[in-house]
Order: sequence, then structure tokens, then C-alpha cells
Amino acid sequence: MRTSILLAAILTFASSVACAQTMQDVLEASKPSDWRVLPPENTLYLELETGRVIIELAPEFAPRHVENIRTLVRERYFDGLPIIRVQDNYVVQWGDPDDKKPLGTAKKALTAEFTRPAAGLDFTRLPDPDTYAPETGFVSGFPAAREGAEGRAWLTHCYGMVGVARGTDVDGASGTGLYVVIGHAPRQLDRNITVVGRVVQGVEYLSSLPRGTGPLGFYEKAAQYVPIRRVRFASELPAEERTQLELLRTDTPTFEALVESRRNRRDDWYKVLAGRIDVCSVPLPVRVRD
Amino acid sequence: MRTSILLAAILTFASSVACAQTMQDVLEASKPSDWRVLPPENTLYLELETGRVIIELAPEFAPRHVENIRTLVRERYFDGLPIIRVQDNYVVQWGDPDDKKPLGTAKKALTAEFTRPAAGLDFTRLPDPDTYAPETGFVSGFPAAREGAEGRAWLTHCYGMVGVARGTDVDGASGTGLYVVIGHAPRQLDRNITVVGRVVQGVEYLSSLPRGTGPLGFYEKAAQYVPIRRVRFASELPAEERTQLELLRTDTPTFEALVESRRNRRDDWYKVLAGRIDVCSVPLPVRVRD
Repeated sequence: MRTSILLAAILTFASSVACAQTMQDVLEASKPSDWRVLPPENTLYLELETGRVIIELAPEFAPRHVENIRTLVRERYFDGLPIIRVQDNYVVQWGDPDDKKPLGTAKKALTAEFTRPAAGLDFTRLPDPDTYAPETGFVSGFPAAREGAEGRAWLTHCYGMVGVARGTDVDGASGTGLYVVIGHAPRQLDRNITVVGRVVQGVEYLSSLPRGTGPLGFYEKAAQYVPIRRVRFASELPAEERTQLELLRTDTPTFEALVESRRNRRDDWYKVLAGRIDVCSVPLPVRVRD
Repeated sequence: MRTSILLAAILTFASSVACAQTMQDVLEASKPSDWRVLPPENTLYLELETGRVIIELAPEFAPRHVENIRTLVRERYFDGLPIIRVQDNYVVQWGDPDDKKPLGTAKKALTAEFTRPAAGLDFTRLPDPDTYAPETGFVSGFPAAREGAEGRAWLTHCYGMVGVARGTDVDGASGTGLYVVIGHAPRQLDRNITVVGRVVQGVEYLSSLPRGTGPLGFYEKAAQYVPIRRVRFASELPAEERTQLELLRTDTPTFEALVESRRNRRDDWYKVLAGRIDVCSVPLPVRVRD
């Protein structure tokens, strides 16, 4: 405890010393203002028999798709539909296996939102080279990439990211089928599909599901489907039924110190410091609100 | 089928045209000599109640650890021990939870084999930049990195790679505790731990296990442990009990064409070609031998 107080003091007066900290030091030294409340109106609860998967949506990147998902959830489209696909080291996907359930007032097809202008985004850039993109970093807590401050920007396919399944038609999706990445970041998907958010808690309820044995990891029999009890926005539930979470902001000196603590892990175990980090290896801390 | 014959002809006469192929085209056009038999003496079967996990060991990179694992397996050290740790987006680990089982004639501690000289390795280099290493590529079918042809080389922590658990002492491990990567490549581990091989089939029996709820994903109760029926080298079993597998060689023009087919996925679905690939996203095809 003494150590964490000391480090808090150092952090206040000389942020360049942050490189000597571990992630735990950084988190212990964090201030309340380094955290943000998970906004209930953009928080989706995917309720399974085993537990609650909590997703933060990203309307900054996919406003049309988030709006359509809002309609689908409000009209209870997802309730009772199943998880139909679990492909190892790739994705878990849910939706209507028969494509027959009425969409109500939701739109049937939306114009793709694969990228958006980088201008106007508060982009916290990572210092290290990336295989796939000229620049990577974070926007409002989401891992992202851009071509430069005046080019295009997009959310990156990291573990736990949530996207909108589509066929070969880029403008044919509506948000009725969603997937979550459960393996090594499939970055080749970037800019080819609309990403709508990320799982902030409970991804293990998806990643530990039995793998589908059909092509692309689809379950071959309806008996294998994993039922979804319901999907709700946090804002639809009374306060006592919500999971009160806070996330570390990604636009602060504390987050910069956290990134540095993971680029160079200064603890007893590591002997060779990587000195680098890729956008999908940066942890995005979540904690329960007091 | 006509297409694949045509492409085979193109591949023969002009490998530069390979960039127009899909992975399926490349595999259909492959010759028998593009494949190698999984060597029984380096093939480990981790037998669970649910199925067989097949691991290829890499004595080129970790000769001392592979030799010690050979002794441990021959003396049936692993039989009846459990999987004790499943940490989401990280690793599955097995071994002796009490650290009490006698090691027999196996060594209790080995000098680390984190890296080795690059000289002497047949290194198929990838063309694209990597966040963590100056050069990445493949050696004898394993994903690897090096500092240059005259520097050090090491196996990279990709999905499915198998390593030797250790404490803070770099020379304190013996191969009694092994782990498999089941998430986004934790490349910060590279050069910090001995990597002994990779899973070539059945990784889903590990990656779909319930996550441990203790610190670092350890199971908190013995009742949660996942029993290992037995661990055997393929060479210890009669032919009819072996899984006959072949792997695509990584030192051939066919493999180069496969890499190119994944750097630029030329099918109806992809609209923006990545033009790049990272070492942990290159598929390493496995097929059942005729």
C-alpha cells in the first residue's frame, strides 16, 4: 500500500517515471476521474442460461447499425433466438437459424459502416508498428486504427469485439446476426464488415461453448443451439438488475502509463521486455462500481 | 474441378500468378511432396475424456525440454494428472497441482531454451512487418521469429503453441507443467519461456473448457480439474491407434502461394484486401493421410 501511494505521488509529479510501474501500480494509483461509467443506453446484456455477457456498443463508429439493434432489442427480436455458430479460434455467432423471424419495425438492410472519417475522433495513438494498419490506438475505450488524422478510421477485430454478420452483399446486413471474436485477432476482417462494439464482461460464457462441427463452426443440429434467454439494454432494466461497471478511460495519462506498463512488464517474471505492444494486447480494465 | 486443374497448371509455370488463388485453390493444386508426415517420435497424444489433443514437439528449438518430456511420458508421469488452469484469452495448463508426484529418472530442472541461434535453421520469412520481432516466418512448420540470419531465433506464442510453465527462476522448469495458448497471441511471452511445440489437432478440447475462477484462471476446487487419461508418443502406440496426419510443408512454393492467398483473400466476400499477414494468422494445414 505504501508503494502504491508513493507511485501515485510520482505519477502526479513526473509522468515520465511511469515506465517503472506495473499495471497493478498504475491501477492502484488511478484517480476516480480516470474511470468512466459504462453508459446504460449503449450497454447490451446478452443473457444466457450460464450468465450475462455485457457488450458496449459504439455508435461513434456504427450509428445506423446501433440504432437498428436498438429497435430489434426494444421489440424483443433476439429473445429466444440461439447461438448457432462457435468456430474455434474465430467467432461465436447468434441469430435466426431459419431467417424467418419478423423484423418488426427494424430495417432489413443497412448501408455498410466499415470505416468512418478519422476527423472528429479523439484518437489515443499507440507508439508501436502494426502489421495491418498505418496507425492503431483507442477511441472512447475501443481499439481502433486509422490511415492518419485525415483519412479513414475503423474498429479493429480484437478478442471480444462484436460485429454484424453479413453475406457477400456489403449493404445487406441489418444487425439481426451478431458475432464475437473468440480467438487470435482476425484483422483481415477490418474494413470488411461493420463492427458495433465489444464485450466488456462475460466473454467466457461465449468462448467456452462447445465448438460447432459443421462448416465454419455452425452447429449441425438444433439440439446443439445455445438458447438466448433475452437481450436487453441496461437502460431498460431497473437499477438493481443492472451490473454497475466502470471502465478505464483511454484518453488519460493513466492509460498511457498502463500501456507503457504492458509494453515493458517490470515484474520478477519477465526477463526480456517486449518493448512493444499490439493494439489487441492492451488490456481495457473494467471494475465494479462502488 | 476444372478451375483447380487450370490453377495447378498456372502454379507450375508461373508462380507469380499465385496471387490470384484462394487457399482452397492452393491446397487443391498441392503435390504430395508439399506435405510431410507428422513424425511419430515427436508427436504427443494428450488423451482427454472428450478426445485426443495432438501436439508436435520441436526438438530443433528445445532439445533438452523435449528429451525430458520424452522421459516423463515414457515413465507415465502425466497419466492421471489434471488440467488445473484455464484462463480466458490466454492459456490452458496441466500438471501436478500439489507438485508431489515423483519425477522418476527425469531431470528436476533444466537450463532455459528461450531462444537459439538462427544460424542452421531453414527460415521461410514472411514479407510483412511484425509488432514484436525484426523478422517472422516459419521453421519446419512452426511459427518463429529471429533477429536476422546471424542473431537469435525463437518460436512465437501463437494460438495453439505449447510451452513449459515456469516460476520466476528461468532455469527452474522441467516440462512437468505444460500450457497451450488459447487466445490472442501473447507475444510478450516470446523469449521469456521455453516453447516446445504446437497443437496440430484437437485444440478445441482445450479451448472450450470451463474457465477457472481463481487467480490466473486456476481451478479453485479439485472437483473442477479435467482429468488426463494418458499422454503417449504416437511412436509408442500400434499403427492402428495412431492418428495418421500430414502437414503442409512451410519451405515450398506451395506454402508461399498459401501465404499470399491469405494476405490477399480473393473471394467474393472480401472487399478490402489486407495485403499483409501476421505470423499467427497464417494457417498451417493438416490433413488425414490416405
